[in-house]
Amino acid sequence: MLNAADTAFADKLKRAGIATRPATDHYVTEMRGNYRGLSEVVALPASTEDVSKIVRLCAEDRIGLIPFGGGTGLVAGQVSPNGPAPLILSLERMSAIRATYPEENTLIAEAGATLADIQTAAEKANGLFPLSYASQGSARIGGALSVNSGGLNVLRYGTARDLCLGVEAVLPNGDIFHGLKRLRKDNTGYDLRNLLVGSEGTLGVITAAALKLFPRPAHVATAFVAVPDPAAALRMLSLFREHTGDCVSAFELISAQSFAFLRATFPDIRLPFDETPKWSVLVELGTGPSTDAETLLVETFEKAMEANLASDARLAQSGQQRAEFWAVRETIPEANRKIGAIASHDIALPLGEVPAFLAKAGEALPALFPMRINAFGHLGDGNLHYNIFPPEGESREAYRDKAPLVTRHIHDLAVARGGTFSAEHGVGRAKIADLERYGDPAKRAAMRAIKQALDPKGIMNPGALFKS
Amino acid sequence: MLNAADTAFADKLKRAGIATRPATDHYVTEMRGNYRGLSEVVALPASTEDVSKIVRLCAEDRIGLIPFGGGTGLVAGQVSPNGPAPLILSLERMSAIRATYPEENTLIAEAGATLADIQTAAEKANGLFPLSYASQGSARIGGALSVNSGGLNVLRYGTARDLCLGVEAVLPNGDIFHGLKRLRKDNTGYDLRNLLVGSEGTLGVITAAALKLFPRPAHVATAFVAVPDPAAALRMLSLFREHTGDCVSAFELISAQSFAFLRATFPDIRLPFDETPKWSVLVELGTGPSTDAETLLVETFEKAMEANLASDARLAQSGQQRAEFWAVRETIPEANRKIGAIASHDIALPLGEVPAFLAKAGEALPALFPMRINAFGHLGDGNLHYNIFPPEGESREAYRDKAPLVTRHIHDLAVARGGTFSAEHGVGRAKIADLERYGDPAKRAAMRAIKQALDPKGIMNPGALFKS
Repeated sequence: MLNAADTAFADKLKRAGIATRPATDHYVTEMRGNYRGLSEVVALPASTEDVSKIVRLCAEDRIGLIPFGGGTGLVAGQVSPNGPAPLILSLERMSAIRATYPEENTLIAEAGATLADIQTAAEKANGLFPLSYASQGSARIGGALSVNSGGLNVLRYGTARDLCLGVEAVLPNGDIFHGLKRLRKDNTGYDLRNLLVGSEGTLGVITAAALKLFPRPAHVATAFVAVPDPAAALRMLSLFREHTGDCVSAFELISAQSFAFLRATFPDIRLPFDETPKWSVLVELGTGPSTDAETLLVETFEKAMEANLASDARLAQSGQQRAEFWAVRETIPEANRKIGAIASHDIALPLGEVPAFLAKAGEALPALFPMRINAFGHLGDGNLHYNIFPPEGESREAYRDKAPLVTRHIHDLAVARGGTFSAEHGVGRAKIADLERYGDPAKRAAMRAIKQALDPKGIMNPGALFKS
Repeated sequence: MLNAADTAFADKLKRAGIATRPATDHYVTEMRGNYRGLSEVVALPASTEDVSKIVRLCAEDRIGLIPFGGGTGLVAGQVSPNGPAPLILSLERMSAIRATYPEENTLIAEAGATLADIQTAAEKANGLFPLSYASQGSARIGGALSVNSGGLNVLRYGTARDLCLGVEAVLPNGDIFHGLKRLRKDNTGYDLRNLLVGSEGTLGVITAAALKLFPRPAHVATAFVAVPDPAAALRMLSLFREHTGDCVSAFELISAQSFAFLRATFPDIRLPFDETPKWSVLVELGTGPSTDAETLLVETFEKAMEANLASDARLAQSGQQRAEFWAVRETIPEANRKIGAIASHDIALPLGEVPAFLAKAGEALPALFPMRINAFGHLGDGNLHYNIFPPEGESREAYRDKAPLVTRHIHDLAVARGGTFSAEHGVGRAKIADLERYGDPAKRAAMRAIKQALDPKGIMNPGALFKS
């Protein structure tokens, strides 16, 4: 039904004044190396009007297009291994910070701005843009919004969705939705912004966003805390939230396996504990100028000790040590890639279900075949990266065929406890079967109806979210 | 195209096991007395399955239905003055708190639970449900979500939308959307929850919601602060957010006119200042156990004084005085009703545009005809209730025909500054013309396409949001 974006179409784009380039590796590979896209042509719009022009041309010729940000997505939302080859519509040239409004704690960024660019612009305006994760130097805000990415500060500040006040987007018919409002409240009809956010490029191309900033914490304190088990970690989270007046900005669970992988793959990285605890938490507080964050952290840790929720801690003694602590956390995904996972999972659970899930999965999964489990992640959000590795000394290749089995088990266990098979990475192409298995049927029917209504030709990111 | 919900249809509902009652005044009038609904029959489902049954029967017979909560809406979303008479589907019997999860800071409430019920349940679980406004004793959460209501604590905790983790809803075809997830992150397809939230009953009936709770602040401090002008108030807001580590839970602007109306209509109410300041702010801080909220408030106020952002203040000295302060704020809408507004407006502006809007409107509007302006509201959200009254001693009846003119002026001025004609009340039936005038055309087209896709028979709250 769709046609391929071939060199003839590239010529047509050029005649319409749109810059193009051939689709090099960057545009057709993804980080985990599981997919390779077929696309050959990249369009490089310089303006929202360019995007509109491209979408209209695609609609005319029934050519699929993939809105492309930093290429850091983990569910193959940005690469299409099946034809006809879609056009890559890269937002990289639209990376301006259009305006900052320091007195409002808002700014407007084009879709191609990286998270790091936006963080820097926020800092210049004496504000904080809290969306933060390992790939922030290359992840672009358009892509972040299209998958509603999360990261390290969701507990306090929310996901990409929560940080977005408004979007400008090109809809599948080429019309521009002018929704760049800097309003905290605007109840004027359907929430098209939140429909576009998280729709993974299947309903339109986000071209710019109005984003919330926050006051920068005056004081920050960071510690690694050893905990007896995940249940204790959760109770400690409650204690921290209550005792600090909800100043907890990060609460990351790390398993002993994470430290072992780091030691094996990054021998130079400095780990916080001499003797690796079975479970530990990286906790960070951000406070106003009149509250000493370190004192508050130490006081709260002492309360946790008294309640037998913690056994040991390392407080970052300097900005440099804080950076080292975070480097430990943020290097875990890289260590995982070096070890080579059989299967990676981005699950979330209701907070209260996390301990039971970890206990149950930790017991049931190794019964399937010998494996190492690395569970870590954003405990404050109930979001675990639950990854499965071959036994030490063995290669993942030998276990590749077992990936679907273990993934099925993990997703079944999570969903049975009210959890989800995709917390912050999205569905893309990699998890369509999961959406079909676990998605609410009424919701899936509504999704199909909405997709058909807004993109009747099916040109927007064909093959993502829905079977093509 | 639709048929009326008449006694024959009521009989059909009864035969299907659904309780009904005649539509008394409560169901067909609204607070401001501007609309009277034609509905004659109220259906009283006791379960989500009942709601599904009712919707299916309505779909079969092409009968419109109005999901009905507490009847406190201010835009006639709940009353249909035009025929054919829709069925009122009241959620009042579905008012259970289905479960609370103290360790997760979540609870699940049925749509008919009032905000006050939910606040109480949260308190029992040692948590805070922050959605709070004058009508909280009768407003039900289903209605609150359907208009995405706001209120007094949005600055810190967000609107109804932001407090909702998941919904259960009956879609226009009678299917139940099982979306009651207690997850902080769940990126699995289109955000049907946020599409239903704010859709004012035109896409489905919300039957229950999973809601976020927060730690209860250990200490609360509340003060009235006199400010030189709205620009100073805004700079004081920034100063408070920064200096308190973002502990500001309310920041309400009140004009001298508000105090004058209170004095005239509620002579027994105790006002904070002997000499009424032209502008004042009701500010509230909520802190954790280790921070003294009063000291923090006084310190911050002193900084505001030094910066010439404040001239005087009254700190609530006790819980009782705090309640009195809030009674002042929350009685303003009642005072307004006693005075009798010519026209009421629920506008929001980008924060930075509030002072210019107030200056411009305060100059331009009285040039239209003699009037009194009462501007007050949630300054922290850029949300003003900007209401127009006749000159002292005159009746609003004499000015009724001027309402459209002044409303047009106010909405034009707000929208020209990037603002909105409806911040927290919604569109309902009262503001459809505004949506047509000010709404983004691409968004409106998308809204129509979505409505047609999900509710092809047009039975869900016919006449709301769209011209019937």
